[in-house]
This record gives sequence, C-alpha cells and structure tokens, in this order.
Amino acid sequence: MEEGRQQPLKSSSILVLHDALIVTMDSHKRVFRNGAVAVRGDTIIAVGQSQDIISQLSYLSPQLLNLHGHFLLPGLINTHVHTSQQLGRGIADDVDLLTWLHDRIWPYESNMTEDDSYISTLLCGIELIHSGVTCFAEAGGQHVSEWQRRLNGWEYVSQKDLHKKYHNTADGRIRIWFGLRQIMNSTDRLLTETRDAAKQLNTGIHMHVAEIPYENQVVVERQGVDHGTVTYLEKIKLLQDNLLAAHTVWVNEDEVGLLSKSGVKVSHCPAAAMHMLGFAPIREMIDAGVCVSLGTDGAPSNNRMSIVDEMYLASLINKGREVFGKGTTDPTVLPAETILEMATTNGAKSVLWDKEIGSLEVGKKADMIVVNPSSWSMMPVHDCISSLVYCMRTENITSLMCNGRWIMVDKKIVTLNEEEVIVMAKKASSDLLKRAGIQIPSRMNFL
Amino acid sequence: MEEGRQQPLKSSSILVLHDALIVTMDSHKRVFRNGAVAVRGDTIIAVGQSQDIISQLSYLSPQLLNLHGHFLLPGLINTHVHTSQQLGRGIADDVDLLTWLHDRIWPYESNMTEDDSYISTLLCGIELIHSGVTCFAEAGGQHVSEWQRRLNGWEYVSQKDLHKKYHNTADGRIRIWFGLRQIMNSTDRLLTETRDAAKQLNTGIHMHVAEIPYENQVVVERQGVDHGTVTYLEKIKLLQDNLLAAHTVWVNEDEVGLLSKSGVKVSHCPAAAMHMLGFAPIREMIDAGVCVSLGTDGAPSNNRMSIVDEMYLASLINKGREVFGKGTTDPTVLPAETILEMATTNGAKSVLWDKEIGSLEVGKKADMIVVNPSSWSMMPVHDCISSLVYCMRTENITSLMCNGRWIMVDKKIVTLNEEEVIVMAKKASSDLLKRAGIQIPSRMNFL
Repeated sequence: MEEGRQQPLKSSSILVLHDALIVTMDSHKRVFRNGAVAVRGDTIIAVGQSQDIISQLSYLSPQLLNLHGHFLLPGLINTHVHTSQQLGRGIADDVDLLTWLHDRIWPYESNMTEDDSYISTLLCGIELIHSGVTCFAEAGGQHVSEWQRRLNGWEYVSQKDLHKKYHNTADGRIRIWFGLRQIMNSTDRLLTETRDAAKQLNTGIHMHVAEIPYENQVVVERQGVDHGTVTYLEKIKLLQDNLLAAHTVWVNEDEVGLLSKSGVKVSHCPAAAMHMLGFAPIREMIDAGVCVSLGTDGAPSNNRMSIVDEMYLASLINKGREVFGKGTTDPTVLPAETILEMATTNGAKSVLWDKEIGSLEVGKKADMIVVNPSSWSMMPVHDCISSLVYCMRTENITSLMCNGRWIMVDKKIVTLNEEEVIVMAKKASSDLLKRAGIQIPSRMNFL
Repeated sequence: MEEGRQQPLKSSSILVLHDALIVTMDSHKRVFRNGAVAVRGDTIIAVGQSQDIISQLSYLSPQLLNLHGHFLLPGLINTHVHTSQQLGRGIADDVDLLTWLHDRIWPYESNMTEDDSYISTLLCGIELIHSGVTCFAEAGGQHVSEWQRRLNGWEYVSQKDLHKKYHNTADGRIRIWFGLRQIMNSTDRLLTETRDAAKQLNTGIHMHVAEIPYENQVVVERQGVDHGTVTYLEKIKLLQDNLLAAHTVWVNEDEVGLLSKSGVKVSHCPAAAMHMLGFAPIREMIDAGVCVSLGTDGAPSNNRMSIVDEMYLASLINKGREVFGKGTTDPTVLPAETILEMATTNGAKSVLWDKEIGSLEVGKKADMIVVNPSSWSMMPVHDCISSLVYCMRTENITSLMCNGRWIMVDKKIVTLNEEEVIVMAKKASSDLLKRAGIQIPSRMNFL
C-alpha cells in the first residue's frame, strides 16, 4: 500500500487506486463495490470496476495502490470557515452574543497580527485536512469588519486587488471571491458595487445572511422591506447564483422561494446554528430546490471544525426540528445520501467549482479521501452510505489527495509538521489573548 | 510513562499519577493545574498537588506515572445503553418509527442468539471504553420486549433470579437492576411488583419513560390520568429516587416538578432524541433540580455510541432549543461545567453509585480517564473545561482505568483483542440480518 504513495506522481505517470468501495457522487450516484480510480497529474482519467480499469490501463504500466477494505470518496467541501479564528477556539463558549462579540471576538480579531493569522490558518488547515476537506470557502478574516466599518469603499478596492494578485494561483486552487461580512455594516454602495464587480470578474460573493432576528429587524427599519435581509438582497439584485449565503437562518417561506428562484447557494452550519443563531429551514430549502452545502463556521462559533461532525449534526438537528411543525421528529428528513450530497456535490456548486470538483468523474480534479471503516467506530457496516454520515469519525479518514497530490497519508499530513504548528499556535494564541486583554472566567476552582 | 502502566498493581502497592491537570469533579469543583492522584488496589487514597502527594507518600515508594501535558478526569458514565443492539448499527437509519420497529429492530432482536448478544456487547464495550466510559447502565436486551409481552409475570421472577446470581459480582462492578422496557407493554402488576422488589432488594429500576406523544396518549386513555406516563407513575408510586427514567421527552411542567420532588434520575440521550423522539425539557429539569445524566441509547437509535459526542450534542441542541421559547438560541444554557457534571457526578447518582464513583476523591474507586489535549482537535486550550466538552473527540482519550485496573493504555484496550471482536462482529451481524430477513434498501446505484 505504501509504494504508490511514497513516490511523487510524475505528470506523465498514472496512479490507479483500486479494490476500494468507491462512492463516486456522480449524477448516476454510482457506487463501485470493487472500484478503481485512475489519476494522471491532477486529473481523474478513469473510474470504474477495478478489473476493467487495471486491464484498460495496463499498457501504460500504472502504479497500483490496493485500497482493499477501504472506502474512496470525493474530498469534502467546507463552504463556510473563518481560518483566522482558529487560535480563538474556546475563548467564547457559553456566553451571550454581545459578550461573544464585544469582549471576546472583536478584541481577538483587532489584536491579531498577520503572523497570528497565518499560524491560525495553518492550524485550521490541519483540522480541515484531518476531517477530509479538500476545498473550503473562507468567510473573512480578522480585519474585514473593521475595514468595512471604517473604510467601506476601500474594502471593495482592496478585494479587487486581491483578485488580480491571487485569483487562480496555487495551481488554480486559490480563487478570490468578494466578501461581505453582513448587511448591517455594508452600505448600499458597497453591496451594489460588489455585486457588479463579482459579475464582471466572473467570481462569487460570500456573505453572512439573516443570522439573527435583529438583523432582519434592522433591514426592515432601514430599507422598508417587509421581511429581512433576503428580501432586501432580492430588491437590489444581489440574490444571484454566484452568492454563497452563510447560515441563512431567519428566512420565511417567500424568501426560501427567492433563494431557490435566484440560484443562491446556502451554507448550513449546524453547530454554529445551535450555538448562536437558530434552526434554518433546511428541509424546506431542499424541498424548494435550493442548493444547500455544509460549513463549520469559525472555531469560536463551533469549536469542532470538522465537516464529519457537521454531517452528523445536520442530519440530527434537522430531523429533530420537525417536532416543532409536525409534533414528532421525522427520521426520514435529510437522509444520509442528501447529507453526503451537501458535503460534496452541493459544496462544489456552492463554490462555483462543480465542473472540476465534488465527485469522482473522468476529467475532474483528483480530490479524494480514503476512509478506513474497519474500526470500532464504524463496524459493522450494513449501510455504507449511512455509515459514512452517522458513524464515521474524523479518525476514520486515513488519507487525503488534493489536485492529484497526497496531502495526508495514514493520518499523517505530509506537507507540514503538525507538532511545530501546534507549538507555534499555543504561543501565538496565548500572547494574543494577553495583548487583547481577553479574560475567560474560571468555571471551576483552579488550584 | 510506560513503567507504571506495564506492571500490574499489587494490592499493597501504590500508583501515583502526577503532573496532570486534574478535574476532580468533587463538591468543591477543584481542578489541580499540576495535580496527582494516588491509587492503592481499586481505591483512590490521595488527591492533591503533585509535590504534596509525592512527598507525603514517598516513604511507601509508590510507582510514579508522569502525565505531563495530560488531563485526568473521572471515568464517564453512560446511563442508557443497549449493548445487544451494537450489531444492528446502521440497520434502521432514516426510516419512520414503525419501519424502525417492525421491519428492523424487532426482527433483529427476535433473531438474535445469546452468542450474538455477547459479541454485540463486546463490540459495544470497545466503543464505550474508547469514549471514556467506566460505568454504564444497560437498558434491556434482545428478548425483554417479547418476555414482557408474552410472559409478563415471569419477567419479574427472572429478574429477581438475575439479581440473586449476579448482583455485586465482578469485584462488585456488576449491579443488577430491574428493567421495565416501557409502560405500554407493562401490566400494572408488573409495575407495582417491580417497584416493591427493587425497594426490597435496595436496587434501581431502569425504564424508558415518555418517549413519544403516542405513549402519553395511551396512558391517558387507559389510566384516566390527565397527562401521561410520568403522571401515572407518580400515581402508582413508581416515581422514586431509585428510578432511572430514560429519555423522558414528553413531560409537562407539572411532571418536571414531580420528577424533581421524587428524586427520579433522568438519562438524556441527545442523539436518539433528535433522531426519533424530540426535545426533552432538559434546561427546565436542571433548573428544577432534577438529576440529569447522559446516555447514548443503542446503536440503531444513534450510531455513534460515544458519551464524548453526546456531551457536545447535549450542549448544542439544548442551546438551540431555546429559540422556540425565547425567539433566539441561548448560548448560556447548559454550559460546559454542567455538561461535565451530567457525564460524571450526575451519572454516578443516576446509577445509585455516587458514594463510590463519579469524581476523583479519596475513598472512591479509581475510575479515571487520561486525555491528551495536545492535538489539532483541541489546540489551543484557553478554557480547559469547555475544551473537554466542545473540542474533545473520542480520539483524545488515550487511557482508561476502571476499579484501579488499566483497561486502555495509549488507545489500545489491553483486556481483549479488538481486531478479533470486529471480525466476529462482522460475521455475526451479517448472519443475523440474513436470518432475520432484514432488507436495507440501497441508497445509491451499487455496481
């Protein structure tokens, strides 16, 4: 098993991962019980039955990697994450929203250096990789809210510069979008110019939408619309298919219809929703044809930054939520196959990248995860799709390939030193909290 | 670190675990930043600052085990688990309650052999140990519902025999309780005789209570009480401090008062609640002084059989639930310290064992878990109590001691061969499903 992994892939050489249970997530929802995926460079060049693929490609002498007993899936996609908040994990648990913002998150963000942000992103990246993520949508860093508050127009200019400088870099894996933190600190000019610039540059907009009832109330009062943020965004034509709306909790039936009609993508973040925001009408959105994907949000809103846990949560809380409408929970809501779509194909659509990632298909990028189900946490597996959603823990994900390159092999990230990052993160975060004067009350009697 | 662990403890020898952050969960909620716990035989003989304990005991030449960088906690207590259902993990996901019962669980249970049950319990035990559990309350095995339906009176006799034969065996770690599966298949005679027998034998009763609205409705119709199961159990004096009521979802304000007044213990099972039952008024119960602990329920109701995940879930879903009463979630509800109590001291009270387990105190049994927080899943730790609840994953629990005996060391269970059990479980569960004629529809297009 090691041989195929240890040798770096030459652009001309072919790697065939075979003998795995392959959940392709293609449009036919094919699952190969004994399947193979062939990769050349960064691209999948064949998917099918192991025997067929191996014999078809034998004349090219491919490297073979036997994944017997393992599952192979598309890499998972996290559509809402604040990487620069990773150092702030645990600084704002069990406090009300105002304390969360004023005494914890704002001091944290405003005292952060660029080095802190870099270390935070490395640490977050480690967790994302371990939890099977090969693509994520960053939702805004440490200075965004201040920029938007103080400079407004500048922010938009600076994002255009970022786009020019970094869009499609890192072998095409970095794509620059426009960020709007939320409507309450965005002027109409920022909103409409962002809308137009994103259209012009053919990129997306990532925005927190309808997070709390107060937000809708402010929008109703300021703008005179009859409900809230979604209604207003429709009015100013910001509801378009390049908008990734994070959370989108406080939306009514009409607004669900608007999201569907306009092709807006919704990032559902179950842990953050339970923690701070409320139950989004996810089942209604899915019924209405809205493309819903999954996000972890930032560490202080969640703590566990794992899409694996969010899959489990998304299914459970949305089954449970039905009790408030129907009088009982509905275990048939958001079944496992829907949850897997949210974490893969819908994720790819949400980041406007579905032609290249999100499923294991010929011509797509080789973004894949290897799952070992043969442990106490998943055994026995009677229904492999539900097992991936309800039983799989982060620790069952053993290896991860992104763009044809192994990033994690046998639970070890091969592209950086995890221990070094953890040591840096401990020091940087401790210094940052001191600098920011953030005090976390003791919950117990420390001696 | 290995030396102290490899040598079996002689009854006279003393082991001192030191240099750990020790969360005692004692009544003063003491946490020693650099603490030690000394164990002789199955008992804790000292808890305090490392230096003090080591110097106090030095004349006895104790074995020393340095746990620098680790957390030491009481073993977690799972107060509601069906060990014989572990082989049925994944057989009943995303189906309605009637399908769950009639087409999956009942055929599974009624086709189970005693061997199957034993293997299932071993597999479940492995998961419990990995997730830090040193004590659990079994909620009833594969033939209980059939017995209760067909034999009724017999069941009660057979439980008395079990008590005689097995109570206080296995170094006192097995305690036999009476089980009542639920009220709808219990006659009044079974209920009242069980109540009296438990009193006479000074043991507990474990019962599923108020799981679904239909149950309450049946009780109202049959018994003429004005609400449901809890109201009726009060009427027949079964609500007593030796009753462990699992789930207890559909209870009104008056019934919360009855639970509190009578000293009934409630086992809250968050995943099962979201999956099948509904939101129990846990915050109201805690406010009313009810002792609430945590349970996983059985694998087909949950899949993840980990109290670690239940801690995370319990906090999140109960914060989220507040939205339905208050209009917003309440992040201050069920804070981390309350959740830890539920999983330790309240667990011990729930199993009527709080004089001996549930906290790290002199004279109590040496039931402990070692947590390694120095990984990407928990770092950085700014608030160790919240980190244990919101960030800790099962994989952070490295070692577990029960009754003074190491059961798991460095993530390896030392008392059985995990791989062997998994192989047995795969075969036994596959055979059982065939025998039972359980068909699980394909969710995707398997080739």
